[in-house]
Amino acid sequence: MELMTEYHGSVKIRFGDVDNAGIVYFPRILDYCHRVFEDFFQDLAGISYDRLINTRRVGFPTVHISADFKRKMKYGDELDIRLSVTRTGNSSADFRYRIFSKASGEELADVKLTVAAVDMDAFKAVRVPEDLRAAFAKVPGGA
Amino acid sequence: MELMTEYHGSVKIRFGDVDNAGIVYFPRILDYCHRVFEDFFQDLAGISYDRLINTRRVGFPTVHISADFKRKMKYGDELDIRLSVTRTGNSSADFRYRIFSKASGEELADVKLTVAAVDMDAFKAVRVPEDLRAAFAKVPGGA
Amino acid sequence: MELMTEYHGSVKIRFGDVDNAGIVYFPRILDYCHRVFEDFFQDLAGISYDRLINTRRVGFPTVHISADFKRKMKYGDELDIRLSVTRTGNSSADFRYRIFSKASGEELADVKLTVAAVDMDAFKAVRVPEDLRAAFAKVPGGA
Amino acid sequence: MELMTEYHGSVKIRFGDVDNAGIVYFPRILDYCHRVFEDFFQDLAGISYDRLINTRRVGFPTVHISADFKRKMKYGDELDIRLSVTRTGNSSADFRYRIFSKASGEELADVKLTVAAVDMDAFKAVRVPEDLRAAFAKVPGGA
Repeated sequence: MELMTEYHGSVKIRFGDVDNAGIVYFPRILDYCHRVFEDFFQDLAGISYDRLINTRRVGFPTVHISADFKRKMKYGDELDIRLSVTRTGNSSADFRYRIFSKASGEELADVKLTVAAVDMDAFKAVRVPEDLRAAFAKVPGGA
Repeated sequence: MELMTEYHGSVKIRFGDVDNAGIVYFPRILDYCHRVFEDFFQDLAGISYDRLINTRRVGFPTVHISADFKRKMKYGDELDIRLSVTRTGNSSADFRYRIFSKASGEELADVKLTVAAVDMDAFKAVRVPEDLRAAFAKVPGGA
Repeated sequence: MELMTEYHGSVKIRFGDVDNAGIVYFPRILDYCHRVFEDFFQDLAGISYDRLINTRRVGFPTVHISADFKRKMKYGDELDIRLSVTRTGNSSADFRYRIFSKASGEELADVKLTVAAVDMDAFKAVRVPEDLRAAFAKVPGGA
Repeated sequence: MELMTEYHGSVKIRFGDVDNAGIVYFPRILDYCHRVFEDFFQDLAGISYDRLINTRRVGFPTVHISADFKRKMKYGDELDIRLSVTRTGNSSADFRYRIFSKASGEELADVKLTVAAVDMDAFKAVRVPEDLRAAFAKVPGGA
């Protein structure tokens, strides 16, 4: 697989995701990001997130969110979610998700999540493993 | 605590629970029932559901649903959910949840869930423990 | 499009879908079925469910569930969900969802949902429109 | 009602809220905050959020999140969520939610949400209405 600056995930907005006004209930936008995060491990790190968690016992709980919701997401929209890893520290990393409407091409949201690498048994911080660090380096994002 | 025929739980319909039409998205009605199920353990069986699962390692996954949704549940309604245990078998039990609007008194739904008693380590059926059996017998429901 | 007896949908079990024991929290199984239901409209009825609801103002709230959960659904599984319409009445229809593990081929669940056709403005029953009736007839299921 | 610096809401962590590791799936923490936000309107602004949305047609979609998750939230915990309104602008306001464990008293999370006041019909920004502005001023937070 060649270098890319972002990893693209695709999410369909579902009936159960929208609220009273036909707009996505905002906590679900973070769920959409996490789904793309899971697929990223499968596709670029060569290990499914479930095996990472349940077999290798390494997990990445979110410790910080900084998110801007710029335009409403409506029922029926399809989203192009572009993941990049903008920083990898010793035991944490910054994931960024730029969310676009497939129909209009407009940017709808910009979500930054800092995750900590933890040992799932002790729930203690660990160094980001080298193979995952290499996977994170594949999607640096960019200007 | 004296004998009662049903255990009452209370649920407020939340903004995030309703869909496009202002009506509760139906899978969430089953989540409401499960919340009352959890509180029932705390209040009538003397053990919180989390300790039951995580310490005693006994769980009650749902194996069958039979549910009638009679009237729409709207954002802003408060629900009175009346739990009874209509049958306790060797390793399963039938829980019934009659759901009423607190405002109008109308019955909105009638949900029957069969749960299996399982050992959470082996995920194998086990006999319903005696103390829980006694708790189930406290709320037989009735005509 | 030629006649088929079932419509196939595909669902990936996500991290946020599983509970304490790594098993899908059962109300989410009904959400999975609804997602396949929505795709069915898009693919076989020629109208997206959001346009059906928001433009034609016809909706299909669920009025009855009868479901058997036969085997646990675990994080990491992918599901093949086979939708059929086993009955279409005047203003209601029975949808059946047989859920299989893609990995093992095993049947995990059998879910039957009765939906009512309603006018979304009056929230009153209406006759199932002819074009949708024709779409329902494309997936009769079978032995 | 006398002045208070924060509005307290109470949330029980439910079985369906926790993930594989027994920890709350982080998007649900934002749902918890929204529930307290809804109760705040009922209790301090004298109008339920559903009437605000559906009758007055004013809503408060979230446009920015800045959140720190400091300690894990486990199944069985009860949360004390302390809402304050740290800024009210012309057509937006900053809500802060400090989340504490009732059992240990520890601070688990600090969530800041910027909401925009919008006309629900046009989905356009409007000035925060005076009565709500007065309600927001009741809970300035602070040292």
